[in-house]
Amino acid sequence: MIIQKYGGTSVGSPERIKNVVRRVAKYKSLGHQVVVVVSAMSGETNRLIALAKEMQAHPDPRELDMVVSTGEQVTIGLLSMGLMEAGLKAKSYTGAQVRIVTDSAHTKARILSIDEQNIRNDLANDIIVVVAGFQGVDQHGNITTLGRGGSDTTGVAIAAALRADECQIYTDVDGVYTTDPRMVPEARRLKTITFEEMLEMASLGSKVLQLRSVEFAGKYKVKLRVLSSFEEEGEGTLITFEENEKMEQAIISGIAFNRDEAKITVRGVPDRPGIAYQILGPVSEANVDVDMIIQNIGVDGSTDFSFTVHRNEFSKAMDILKNQVQPHVGATNVVGDDKIAKVSVVGVGMRSHVGIASKMFRTLAEEGINIQMISTSEIKISVVIDEKYLELAVRVLHKAFDLDQEPM
Amino acid sequence: MIIQKYGGTSVGSPERIKNVVRRVAKYKSLGHQVVVVVSAMSGETNRLIALAKEMQAHPDPRELDMVVSTGEQVTIGLLSMGLMEAGLKAKSYTGAQVRIVTDSAHTKARILSIDEQNIRNDLANDIIVVVAGFQGVDQHGNITTLGRGGSDTTGVAIAAALRADECQIYTDVDGVYTTDPRMVPEARRLKTITFEEMLEMASLGSKVLQLRSVEFAGKYKVKLRVLSSFEEEGEGTLITFEENEKMEQAIISGIAFNRDEAKITVRGVPDRPGIAYQILGPVSEANVDVDMIIQNIGVDGSTDFSFTVHRNEFSKAMDILKNQVQPHVGATNVVGDDKIAKVSVVGVGMRSHVGIASKMFRTLAEEGINIQMISTSEIKISVVIDEKYLELAVRVLHKAFDLDQEPM
Repeated sequence: MIIQKYGGTSVGSPERIKNVVRRVAKYKSLGHQVVVVVSAMSGETNRLIALAKEMQAHPDPRELDMVVSTGEQVTIGLLSMGLMEAGLKAKSYTGAQVRIVTDSAHTKARILSIDEQNIRNDLANDIIVVVAGFQGVDQHGNITTLGRGGSDTTGVAIAAALRADECQIYTDVDGVYTTDPRMVPEARRLKTITFEEMLEMASLGSKVLQLRSVEFAGKYKVKLRVLSSFEEEGEGTLITFEENEKMEQAIISGIAFNRDEAKITVRGVPDRPGIAYQILGPVSEANVDVDMIIQNIGVDGSTDFSFTVHRNEFSKAMDILKNQVQPHVGATNVVGDDKIAKVSVVGVGMRSHVGIASKMFRTLAEEGINIQMISTSEIKISVVIDEKYLELAVRVLHKAFDLDQEPM
Repeated sequence: MIIQKYGGTSVGSPERIKNVVRRVAKYKSLGHQVVVVVSAMSGETNRLIALAKEMQAHPDPRELDMVVSTGEQVTIGLLSMGLMEAGLKAKSYTGAQVRIVTDSAHTKARILSIDEQNIRNDLANDIIVVVAGFQGVDQHGNITTLGRGGSDTTGVAIAAALRADECQIYTDVDGVYTTDPRMVPEARRLKTITFEEMLEMASLGSKVLQLRSVEFAGKYKVKLRVLSSFEEEGEGTLITFEENEKMEQAIISGIAFNRDEAKITVRGVPDRPGIAYQILGPVSEANVDVDMIIQNIGVDGSTDFSFTVHRNEFSKAMDILKNQVQPHVGATNVVGDDKIAKVSVVGVGMRSHVGIASKMFRTLAEEGINIQMISTSEIKISVVIDEKYLELAVRVLHKAFDLDQEPM
C-alpha cells in the first residue's frame, strides 16, 4: 500500500492533474493499493486568502478555514474525475469526510485521530482513494486547516493510520540534496537520509518537506520518499528511520543554512540562577520564537547572553530587551545584528567520528570567516557568521566534507 | 425572523458582498433574527464546471458535486468575515454542517430534512447565520447539490424548517412583472401575486424564481418576497398563499411566454382507448418531457393528436414518432413545427370572471394572429402561435387586460 502526496505545482492545471493520473495509474497497475493526497492547485490558496483579506483585515480563523479548505476540495474532485476517465475506480474525500479529527486551533490545527475504515473498505474494493490534504474537522464539526505545508502532514498521518508501506511526497525537486544546488552546483541528491538528519535539515531551512510531517513520520515509523512529480523515472530520496537502512555511510549528509535569523546579545548580565528565564521570559511572552541560545561561563560574576530570533521579529525583540529586560536584570547593554547567517553541517556519522567540528572550524578559518556563535547537537554543528560570507562558507564546507563525491 | 437569499450576481465580488453586509446589518438593527443563504459568486460555478469537463467529458456526478459545492462555501466564509468586520456576530454553515439531508441524486438532489437546532441556538445568541445554498449531504455523508437555482430552494426550505416570518429572495430584478419589461416597456411590477399564479408564471418561462422553490414555499406556506439586491429601497413582490392577502384585485396578473418549445401533431390516429399512451409512452421512455397535450374528439373513428416538447428535443421526438409510433398505431402521418411560441394569460381572478378566454382570442384575432393550439387550467389560458407574432401578441394582450394600469 502506497500513499502519494502531490503538492500545488503538481496539480496546478488540468494538464498537470492528468500527469498525476498517469503516475497513479502506473502504481495501481503494478498491483499497489493507492491513496492520493493532494494540495490546492498552485495559486489557489493565495487567491482565496486575498479574497478573505478584502472582506476582513484580519480574517476570522474559522471563516478563513472555511474559505481556504475549498482549494483542496476542488482538486480531489478533479483528480477523481481524471482517474475515472482513465478507466479506474476512484473516490474523493474531504478531511471531514475521512474524519481527520483535529483540535480547534483554526489555521494551524493538529491532527488528533484519523478514522481509516472507509478508506480501507474502498481500497479493498479496488478503489483509488483521493484525500484532501491540509484539512480536517474538529469535534464540533468545524472545518480546520493544518497550516501551510499541512498536506505533507496529511499524507504521513494517513500512511501511519493505514500502516502503508511507503509515503511518497511528490514535489518540484527530485529529492533531498547535500545542500541547495542553486548555491553549490556540485550539490548531489542523497539516495537516503535518516529522519534525524532530515529533521535537522528541515529545521535549518531546507524547504523540501514540512518539519511537522517529518516529525510525524519519525514518530510513527513511516517510510517517506521525496520524488519529483515532473520526472517519469527517478528514485528520489528515501528518508529512513533506521540508520542501518541508510546505505550511504557518509559521515556528513549535508550542509544546511538559514538567513532568516538575527542575533541579539545581552551584555554584562549578573551570573546568577534564573537569569536565562528573566531574559527570555518576556521575549517568549511576546510570542517571539527563540532559536539558538548561548551562554558562556561567567567572569567576575557577570556574563554575556546571546540568542537568535527570526529576522522579522528582530526589532520587536530588541525593544523588549532594551526597555523591559535590561533595566530589570541590570545588564550593561543590549546589542543586535540582523545581517547574520547560520550554517550547519548535519550527519548521523558525527556520533562515531571525532574531528568534524575542528574540520569545520578550520575550513572556515582558512577563508577568513569569523565564527560569531556555535551550537551543537548530537548530529549537527551550527555556526553563526556574517551574512556576506554565507555562499562562500557553504561552498567550502560542501567541498571539505567531500559532499560532491558519491560516498563509498 | 427573516431568511434572506442572495444570488450569484448579488455576491459577485467583495464589493458586492459588502453591500449584502450593509443590507443584512440594516435588518439586524431593526431587531430581526436573520439567516442568510447565498449562492456562489457569479461565474464561479461555470468556472468549476469547465475545469471538471477538462478532466472528464461527462463528469462523475458525485465528484462534480464535490467540486461545484466549493463555490457557495467560499461565499459563506467571505460574507461571515464581512459581517464580523461590520461588528456583527456571524457564523457560516455548509449544507453538510447544517445537516441539510438530501437524497443521493447527485447534481439534482432533493431535500429530505433539515436539522435546524444549531441555527436556532446561534440565532438565540444574536448570531447571524450564513448558510451555503444549493447544497446538502446525503445519508452516507456525500456532498450533494440541488441543481441550478437550488439556492432559492435552500432559502425556502430553511424558512419552512424555522417557521420564519418571511423568505426574501434578492435577485437582479426588483420583483415579478406583469410580463417581461424588455418586451413590453409598460410592464408593471406586481406588489403581490399568489403562489398559484407564480407557479404558472414560473413554469411558463418567467425566470425570476426557480419553480421548485415556489412549489416548496406553497407546500410549507412560506411567505416569499422577491426584491432587488441593487436597490436600497423597494418592497419587491410578495408571493402570498392566500388569495385574500392579495391586495390587488386584478383579474389577470400577468402575461407569460415561452419560445423554447416545438409542436408535433400525429395525424389520422385511430380513435380508440389507450391511443394516448401508445403515442406518448415511447416519447417519455426516451426521457423527452412533454408539455401541452391536445386531443380533439374524433371524426369517423380517427383523430389528430398534438403536443409540445422542448425545442432541443424536437428532432429526437420526431424520429421516435415517425419510426416507432406511426407504423405501430397506424397513423396517417406526423408533422412538426419548431417555430412556435406559447403565450399565456395568468390570474386567479379568472375563476370568478367569465369572458377572459374570448377576450384573449378576440384580441389576437384582431391582429390577425392565428391560434394553433389552446390549453387551459383554472387560472391560465395558453395558446400556441407562430413564433414571429410573439412580441406583438404579448404587447396587445398586456394592453387589452389593462396590465399597464395600477389596479383599483
